[in-house]
Amino acid sequence: MPTQFDPPSGTRDFLAAECDKREWAFGVLREVFAEYGFEPLQTPAFERIDVLLGKYGEEADKLVFKILRRGEHEASGEADLALRYDLTVPLARVAAGRGSQLPVPYKRYAMGPVWRADRPGKGRFRECVQCDLDTLGSSSPLADAEVLCAHHDAMARLGLADFTILLNSRHVLAGLLEAFGVPEELGPGVLISLDKLDKLAASQVVAELTGRGLAERAAGDLVEAMTAPDAGERIRLALRRSDAGAAGLDEVDRLLGLLDGQVPHGRIAFTPRMVRGLSYYTGPIWELVAAGVPGSIGSGGRYDHLIAQLGGPDVPATGTSLGVERVLMLLGPPPAARPGRLDVAVPVLADDLAAQAFALAAAARSAGLRASVYLGASAKLGRQLRWAAEQGARWCLIYGHAERQDGVVTVRDMASAGQSRVAHDAVAGYLAERAGRDPARPAARAAAGGGDE
Amino acid sequence: MPTQFDPPSGTRDFLAAECDKREWAFGVLREVFAEYGFEPLQTPAFERIDVLLGKYGEEADKLVFKILRRGEHEASGEADLALRYDLTVPLARVAAGRGSQLPVPYKRYAMGPVWRADRPGKGRFRECVQCDLDTLGSSSPLADAEVLCAHHDAMARLGLADFTILLNSRHVLAGLLEAFGVPEELGPGVLISLDKLDKLAASQVVAELTGRGLAERAAGDLVEAMTAPDAGERIRLALRRSDAGAAGLDEVDRLLGLLDGQVPHGRIAFTPRMVRGLSYYTGPIWELVAAGVPGSIGSGGRYDHLIAQLGGPDVPATGTSLGVERVLMLLGPPPAARPGRLDVAVPVLADDLAAQAFALAAAARSAGLRASVYLGASAKLGRQLRWAAEQGARWCLIYGHAERQDGVVTVRDMASAGQSRVAHDAVAGYLAERAGRDPARPAARAAAGGGDE
Repeated sequence: MPTQFDPPSGTRDFLAAECDKREWAFGVLREVFAEYGFEPLQTPAFERIDVLLGKYGEEADKLVFKILRRGEHEASGEADLALRYDLTVPLARVAAGRGSQLPVPYKRYAMGPVWRADRPGKGRFRECVQCDLDTLGSSSPLADAEVLCAHHDAMARLGLADFTILLNSRHVLAGLLEAFGVPEELGPGVLISLDKLDKLAASQVVAELTGRGLAERAAGDLVEAMTAPDAGERIRLALRRSDAGAAGLDEVDRLLGLLDGQVPHGRIAFTPRMVRGLSYYTGPIWELVAAGVPGSIGSGGRYDHLIAQLGGPDVPATGTSLGVERVLMLLGPPPAARPGRLDVAVPVLADDLAAQAFALAAAARSAGLRASVYLGASAKLGRQLRWAAEQGARWCLIYGHAERQDGVVTVRDMASAGQSRVAHDAVAGYLAERAGRDPARPAARAAAGGGDE
Repeated sequence: MPTQFDPPSGTRDFLAAECDKREWAFGVLREVFAEYGFEPLQTPAFERIDVLLGKYGEEADKLVFKILRRGEHEASGEADLALRYDLTVPLARVAAGRGSQLPVPYKRYAMGPVWRADRPGKGRFRECVQCDLDTLGSSSPLADAEVLCAHHDAMARLGLADFTILLNSRHVLAGLLEAFGVPEELGPGVLISLDKLDKLAASQVVAELTGRGLAERAAGDLVEAMTAPDAGERIRLALRRSDAGAAGLDEVDRLLGLLDGQVPHGRIAFTPRMVRGLSYYTGPIWELVAAGVPGSIGSGGRYDHLIAQLGGPDVPATGTSLGVERVLMLLGPPPAARPGRLDVAVPVLADDLAAQAFALAAAARSAGLRASVYLGASAKLGRQLRWAAEQGARWCLIYGHAERQDGVVTVRDMASAGQSRVAHDAVAGYLAERAGRDPARPAARAAAGGGDE
């Protein structure tokens, strides 16, 4: 039940743990992409409306968030801008406008929210982060292999193990239709039905195919070939009977050969039934699936003329889209997440000791630890220790008038409640040692994003 | 002159170098904030329109980007959502909705784009990143000192040295008006004029003050006291004559005392003329200024009732806003930026050697280096070496049929053009050593965001 304080329908507020996890994952992805020589591109949240509309089809146009004109034009009720719907149309615009400044090939990644006015539902959001990896300007199969390899490495480095890359080719699909005598006009529908072979029984798919007008014999042969125990061999034999099929097989095998050694064998599988609905693909296509997750957790393929259709130059292109939001749902907390909000809590026991408390917190931070003074109203140590425990602090630095007189700090281990008196100017070194860190190069500074060892 | 391929007016596309710099800076900020125990909060790009409108004043409401209703309601020309205009209203909404789940005090940072339909101009954007640091639920001056200290550390860690924190208090301003007998109704205008003392001559400010209706004598005394060589002392003496003034002075001095040792002396200055136009401040106020930069590069203060006015709970609050876009303009490239697009380039000299080229690039990546195979159409080594040079690669890994026969790789140093033959399986170690890296813990993986030593 939404309340007036919820974020708008289909969007989310992310509190600390979720933000940290997301930033960690985004950092890992940026790191992998950079290692492959992909460079980042960031475009604005909105585009001029004519740049966006008419690019995704009529149904999608209805899902675009449109921005009202401003000032005196607001009353017109017209829109002149719209929130981006994906990251590919902005890429096409940049490729058109900046073509000569971009390297050839242009290997770029983009990561950021897109907005779609879908009906919100479980796991479906109106604002969600997309992450795309694309290479513009190379028709080499090596470019396909590279984006796929980077996609695989990104998943692996995020810690995802139980996923499979389903590999196919538009030429294989064309060859299949030809080899089994599917009339051209039935092609697209037949492919949609075949793609259901992982969800429906063979007989159901045959029924769907005949329902679409395919002859019973062809439907039966096709489904049988694709579901038989020796389906792989039979499909390969069938494909060799058509030019398109043979070309598709070669394409798939070349890609498998290039990825051999980079992607573990069990993680990639030639999957002739896999269709990828989008008509713009022109060569290899792939889909990443994970055990227990409906739909895909990523997909891509070669799309040699799409950039031109979207308003960019006519360049060969290949790319992959990481289903970041779905992958995030599969991931636990980041491996290096530090428990609690603070490592070191610093009580403030009297007004005239507050400046020293600030200095002690700074000393702890110089040892790479998260540290803060107490900001509440109580001057009682007991209350402030409770606060320290609530923050999940490992240590409390207690500095009262007695400690000041002796030039020491009482370091309290919050887990054991044991206390040690440490010379005032030795506190940073003491904490660094206890935390197992080199104070000269604190871990928290070595790893951006606050990660720890 | 905008072209059809430019981003919308007032927005920007960020290519690789700019993205890397921005991500580096954002990472540094997150790191500093985390060390202080501030936690991240991310809210959606848009809010329900009633959450946003009426919160910033009538003029600001005109600058809000409004989103048209969708589907059958689109034709109404009405808006139901709007792009966020700042990060404080979303904070108030979250504090209202999630109050009981948030820690007390709630120390949060937010960093992300906001959108304002300002007239675009030099250095003014309609989409720009804001970065806010706020503490809700503490009325302690330590909370003010902490956000200010974190703000200072963030600037310093970004490498900014030449900046000053101008410190003042709303109570000081009230005391000033009282001490110099400014009639209450003239107060706000008088403060606006006084704030110009850093830009206008004293006589001009006096003229402005009398123009506002202030008695000539009062105007002269006020400006003289604030511009005299012993202005600091004279203003302090004057302030002690009023209750508000004395309270303000104590507030400022307390803050200066807490920051003593944390912020270098020259970097913070009590500045009685500094006003901060925003009426919602209730205590200390500050502004960060940098040499040669008009306006401020950050500002903040205590605002004890604003969260309630914005729809949240009535909690004491203090916060600071980092002028990220302006600060970014002052920064050079990140200290750890790696030159070029790649560290290692791998030519592909024949189709049957492509899989090995992939493996070599992977070996280089395992040594923490950025590496890619050649994706172009030429099989000629000369052409591919030119490509490697264009990428800024330090090494080329050449693997032809001769190398395959001998089980070696020719490693070409792109700067010296010197070549070494290295055993095939020793390449990763060789490169790691040449790059001065520990292959077991590559630098590129230790520092998220692709930073280097």
